[in-house]
Amino acid sequence: MAAHHPVEAVDHRSHKFNPHFTETVINATGPNATPRVRKIAASLIQHIHDFARENEITIDEWLVGLELMNEAGRMSNDRRNEGQLLCDVFGLESLVDEITYKLASDAKDEPTATAILGPFWREEAPQKKMGETIVSGIESKDRTWMHGTVADFRTGSPVEGAVLDVWHTAPNGLYEQQDPDQPEYNLRGRFTTGKDGKYDFYCLKPVPYPIPFDGPAGKVLQALDRHPYRPAHIHFILTAPGYKPIVTQLFDRQSKYLEDDAVFAVKESLIMDFKPLEGNPQAEFDLEMDFKMATFEDAKKHAQAGPTEESASGLNVKI
Amino acid sequence: MAAHHPVEAVDHRSHKFNPHFTETVINATGPNATPRVRKIAASLIQHIHDFARENEITIDEWLVGLELMNEAGRMSNDRRNEGQLLCDVFGLESLVDEITYKLASDAKDEPTATAILGPFWREEAPQKKMGETIVSGIESKDRTWMHGTVADFRTGSPVEGAVLDVWHTAPNGLYEQQDPDQPEYNLRGRFTTGKDGKYDFYCLKPVPYPIPFDGPAGKVLQALDRHPYRPAHIHFILTAPGYKPIVTQLFDRQSKYLEDDAVFAVKESLIMDFKPLEGNPQAEFDLEMDFKMATFEDAKKHAQAGPTEESASGLNVKI
Repeated sequence: MAAHHPVEAVDHRSHKFNPHFTETVINATGPNATPRVRKIAASLIQHIHDFARENEITIDEWLVGLELMNEAGRMSNDRRNEGQLLCDVFGLESLVDEITYKLASDAKDEPTATAILGPFWREEAPQKKMGETIVSGIESKDRTWMHGTVADFRTGSPVEGAVLDVWHTAPNGLYEQQDPDQPEYNLRGRFTTGKDGKYDFYCLKPVPYPIPFDGPAGKVLQALDRHPYRPAHIHFILTAPGYKPIVTQLFDRQSKYLEDDAVFAVKESLIMDFKPLEGNPQAEFDLEMDFKMATFEDAKKHAQAGPTEESASGLNVKI
Repeated sequence: MAAHHPVEAVDHRSHKFNPHFTETVINATGPNATPRVRKIAASLIQHIHDFARENEITIDEWLVGLELMNEAGRMSNDRRNEGQLLCDVFGLESLVDEITYKLASDAKDEPTATAILGPFWREEAPQKKMGETIVSGIESKDRTWMHGTVADFRTGSPVEGAVLDVWHTAPNGLYEQQDPDQPEYNLRGRFTTGKDGKYDFYCLKPVPYPIPFDGPAGKVLQALDRHPYRPAHIHFILTAPGYKPIVTQLFDRQSKYLEDDAVFAVKESLIMDFKPLEGNPQAEFDLEMDFKMATFEDAKKHAQAGPTEESASGLNVKI
């Protein structure tokens, strides 16, 4: 921490308050904490304390923040992750996404860029066959045929056994778990590639929507005088044996809010054209996207950070 | 923020990641946010992002923290505040207590020093008459007669109508709301002073106890290789018309953990002697404590920060 917090600055700040307090809390960490936990905890304590001192946070103000955090936890369950949403409106998920996958930035001939998972992914989406639709019970003139190839970013070879997990909102702006009128797992599906690495399915051209506004994240946005809208997008998780998973979103170039996404997730390379499609009675739009995946070995060569094969399926820091 | 984060430092850190990201998130705050909210939000975003970048926090690591926060919220209700406990083990409540009440530090002839509220206070403790006991259904050789005067710290005059709200754990280390075997509101009481400002009641000499270890705060302590014990203490909230409220704790000088309180709340001026008491069949120990309160007017003269009369009953920052 010393490198980031020069002694001068600490002295200046702390003459008003106990100058040894933060050191006391940091030094309470025992000898058996792992080096990573020790480093993260020391930095977290330093930043939280600096934040409180620099702004002279009062008990009443701290209680406001505490209640927002507790309320976020109380609202979170297997259908909703309000704590995650709270992080998202402060840009934290997007930032740790960048840190984790910085290899996969928007350069050409590199793996597909990543974007945040968001709080609406659900495990065990229905397994579908190529060419099927994920839309059920919705009439729309925005039906979209999405298709493309999953390939190795270095060799260009198709990736067999890649699972494309896809989800997006209904035209009313709601994910199925938010909407009692949608069938369970509507607008979600998992598609597994064959030898040719190709995939195709039917979905809808997505719409912008507000993130849920009835909890702590909404209260924060309101206090910050910010709107809650996200640009139109489709979510994906792409996994394949031996490859680094990709969590990403594709955005509609015609959508509003590309410049001021409420959760700061837009990247230029993820903005796509939904082209008018003629002669297909099942869809009005065509979306073509080729995904490029990196093997764990290749990913390691290009990145210092990012998940390893060992950590991709679990947590790096066990608490 | 610029004052606290020199341009050099930001440039150094950000060459690896998008150097404009934090600015983008801070600048998303709209024109109608209050100045206080704008300042706090900008500082919070800067510190959270700096923390993530300096430690290269990965998605997996962030998810560990997120789940700790969500779990703390889910465990919190009218009997337990796990989010508060999580703040406490990082010293945050003790720090905002110092910031808020820095007037009341441990100098002589000043108002009684403060200490954190902690997560176990309950509203509407039983109203008792002077000389009554707050102990019910517990046999003990540590019965204590506590007594003293509540006075104005400047004039020395007794304070009439001061309400002393007191609570502590049973000998098993549990507050009544944690313990199905204790009567509701056991070891809690409120006592109101008359013209002479005097109070007295019976309680127990407290014992050290571990903070609850079955939730996120316990997981953090375990990861940090720290023990969960607090030194023996009694909690108080002292309120009186026209006076600044005092939230404090008194510690037993004979207790373990005075030097390494799990929540960093001990102050020298709050360490007391429980003296042996003879000739009183109702108690084995004597604890004398004179509380000194400051009027809002006097408090204002001595402090820049701290609650005002207007904010003492509410929240400074409305979100």
